[in-house]
Amino acid sequence: MFTKETYINRRKRLKSKLDKGIALIMGNVDASMNYPQNTYHFRQDSTFLYFFGLDHAGLAGLIDFESGEEMLFGDDFTMDDIIWMGPQPKLKENAEKVGINQSYPLSNLNKVIQKALSQGRTIHFTPPYRGKNMIAMGALLNLHPAKVKDQASTELIKACVALRSVKEPCEIEEMERHMATAYAMHTTAMKMAHPGKTEQEITGALEGISMSGGGIVSFPIICSIHGETLHNHYHGNTLQQGDLLLVDAGSESPLHYATDNTRTSPVGGQFTQKQKEIYQIVVNTNNKALAATKPGITYKEVHLLACKTMAAGLKDLGLMKGDMDEAVAQGAHALFMPHGLGHMIGLDVHDMEDYDQQLVGYDDEVRPSSQFGLSALRMGRKLETHFVVTNEPGIYFIPALIDQWKKTGKFADFINYPQVESYKNFGGIRLEDDILVTETGSRILGKRIPINPEDVEQMVKSGC
Amino acid sequence: MFTKETYINRRKRLKSKLDKGIALIMGNVDASMNYPQNTYHFRQDSTFLYFFGLDHAGLAGLIDFESGEEMLFGDDFTMDDIIWMGPQPKLKENAEKVGINQSYPLSNLNKVIQKALSQGRTIHFTPPYRGKNMIAMGALLNLHPAKVKDQASTELIKACVALRSVKEPCEIEEMERHMATAYAMHTTAMKMAHPGKTEQEITGALEGISMSGGGIVSFPIICSIHGETLHNHYHGNTLQQGDLLLVDAGSESPLHYATDNTRTSPVGGQFTQKQKEIYQIVVNTNNKALAATKPGITYKEVHLLACKTMAAGLKDLGLMKGDMDEAVAQGAHALFMPHGLGHMIGLDVHDMEDYDQQLVGYDDEVRPSSQFGLSALRMGRKLETHFVVTNEPGIYFIPALIDQWKKTGKFADFINYPQVESYKNFGGIRLEDDILVTETGSRILGKRIPINPEDVEQMVKSGC
Ligand SMILES: [Mn+2]
Ligand SMILES: [Mn+2]
Repeated sequence: MFTKETYINRRKRLKSKLDKGIALIMGNVDASMNYPQNTYHFRQDSTFLYFFGLDHAGLAGLIDFESGEEMLFGDDFTMDDIIWMGPQPKLKENAEKVGINQSYPLSNLNKVIQKALSQGRTIHFTPPYRGKNMIAMGALLNLHPAKVKDQASTELIKACVALRSVKEPCEIEEMERHMATAYAMHTTAMKMAHPGKTEQEITGALEGISMSGGGIVSFPIICSIHGETLHNHYHGNTLQQGDLLLVDAGSESPLHYATDNTRTSPVGGQFTQKQKEIYQIVVNTNNKALAATKPGITYKEVHLLACKTMAAGLKDLGLMKGDMDEAVAQGAHALFMPHGLGHMIGLDVHDMEDYDQQLVGYDDEVRPSSQFGLSALRMGRKLETHFVVTNEPGIYFIPALIDQWKKTGKFADFINYPQVESYKNFGGIRLEDDILVTETGSRILGKRIPINPEDVEQMVKSGC
Repeated sequence: MFTKETYINRRKRLKSKLDKGIALIMGNVDASMNYPQNTYHFRQDSTFLYFFGLDHAGLAGLIDFESGEEMLFGDDFTMDDIIWMGPQPKLKENAEKVGINQSYPLSNLNKVIQKALSQGRTIHFTPPYRGKNMIAMGALLNLHPAKVKDQASTELIKACVALRSVKEPCEIEEMERHMATAYAMHTTAMKMAHPGKTEQEITGALEGISMSGGGIVSFPIICSIHGETLHNHYHGNTLQQGDLLLVDAGSESPLHYATDNTRTSPVGGQFTQKQKEIYQIVVNTNNKALAATKPGITYKEVHLLACKTMAAGLKDLGLMKGDMDEAVAQGAHALFMPHGLGHMIGLDVHDMEDYDQQLVGYDDEVRPSSQFGLSALRMGRKLETHFVVTNEPGIYFIPALIDQWKKTGKFADFINYPQVESYKNFGGIRLEDDILVTETGSRILGKRIPINPEDVEQMVKSGC
């Protein structure tokens, strides 16, 4: 359970990692959609949520690594606000909920920062990603808004990554509980995967389930009969018999922990033989990666194992040829899976991606690769107990990529292009679970969403 | 139907209203949620949509009022983008879809603006409301990002207001068609208004219906058993028998026109006598306002007529006393309805609120009031054929406001405080329709969502 002590302890542990300067942890303000007062769903900054836990707009936190002081800045509601908004807790009461004793009006923040700057003290902060925080932080730090992020603190980022990578019991509990909403979303999509339904209808239903379950979607839903288009947020198609519907969708829990799952269903409820063969390779790859995931192994090793499993399956179908270890070492399989096996997940669906992907997914031991495919692996470093990562292998037939490689005969020793040509209209399949690294291995969070082809077929048919 | 000519004509009409300088019409970029790449649903800027019609991120339009030139700025997708995103139209093709012959890379925009500034030409723009556009426009215009909005062009705003206030046949058609989604949302909420359901579940269902119907919600949903809290986005309550559920919710059509309706339902399907009496006053007020709405009358007059109708009903119940014309003239009724009767609606739910509310809802003839209640009326000026406005009277018992007024004996001649005290736990009722000013009067857009108390009761009961 999340308590006052959860936040007190997190700040304490952060303070044990830095000993100079002040951390400025900016909360988010409301994001305007089409005019100032018409805002998107409020989403608090994840770093602020992690250390200060308060889920409303217009707050900022300070942690002084020298004096040990912790301060919350924000404004109390006026009597007029209360007439329109109903009774509201005072800033001081909110501060106490998360164990902070010093709270001040937001206008004081500038004085405190200016004083610290005049004393030559370092202000540590993570890179802002919203325009309004860039402007606010620029004003506080005497920097041009667009340049603030260049001054972000690597030291603070490294400390936050060290803490947030290892999920606490309360976090695991929250994430696991919310998998029920993920399950409902994906089984609903399966039940709706029938000819005549539209991608837009299904997307709407899933967004509704997410919101009814407590939170907004954790990222823009991918719901497409063109699963081979990896960055695809077009929902204009109507499903037809024989299509594969790829749904990559997740939900935020009430405390803003993300789910992220992908399933691929046969529209109408029956895979063709050709579909089932490719599908089964992806299931096998997913299971193999899950079984290999454990403390002490690097996720890059798991990724490469997955790629080899996949490549072996593709070779059996005559799509690849030659030595699969060598093919994977050279990156030939990336024609079919140009992305990585997975990423950390937590308060963000790509956890801590606002910090710096290199500092989150890599370290001195495991360095990022520049090889096409492997370069897209977000998480490569050694796994530790209570990391949570996604496991999301996929096989895609991307016409533009096939044409590009074929033209130059790229990896012609490993790829059987004539056979690949006969799959050019196949589409794509991805199967993604969220997995917890345990002390001895790993396990899927929550009840597993149907993944075996016959179970998926049955779920689709049950929605007739 | 919206065609290329729709946009050509709109720009032509804008050009007929200004004869000096250049309009810079910035499209929106994606809004980051919790890290740069994790974005909210893309929402194009409404002014850009109105004149340039293109619904994707990273575009800007220029209209030269002297040379008559129209230009679109944006970047083509690279081959790498196409591998990840699928085939994409070229900027030039998109430009042609809306009748623009000159299109250039986004990087050229700065040169064009700098050249115009160096020639001393005026750059007209509407006030930015998103941080990233403030930063981008600051860089283009050599202004501090936070100061850009202070330089917005009143001349351009007035011209846009003149055009956008009068809805074209294609706009009315689009708005009317999308009322089917509004109808589905509100009747679903009614059917879900049963003890044990949560506000969050209902909100989720409505968001899902909106998205399935083609677009995001047009504003954050109000779905509350505390209808008396006017700015209420808390959805943490569970419905109980006897509660009134107030739902103020709308949806964006595929072309981003908004709906905005409010209904108030008796949880479980049966109004109490006390509830029905107040409810009936609100229905009567809504109908009276609708009947009075026509070209040539000011919406301030309709607002005041509505207030008098409401006050007369409250007097019948012993909640007000004395001369109701005088009570409304002095603003005593605002204890019960502290907001205005309605606002313009179109591409924005509060149409053009990003411009300047005074220039949208008022003019030289009708000036804004500073009287509590009337000061919250967003739209006061004379109605014209094909304006679309909301009609949203409400009666609320706001404990903090009642206490505040009672303490000072405010309007004690008009308000029967002992009687009001006995309603202090009543909550609030609002009933809102979107209405089109016709040549001879007005009509509700779309099929009217059930509003008579017995129809609402029946709809609630049908969801058992
Ligand atoms: Mn993922
Ligand atoms: Mn409204």
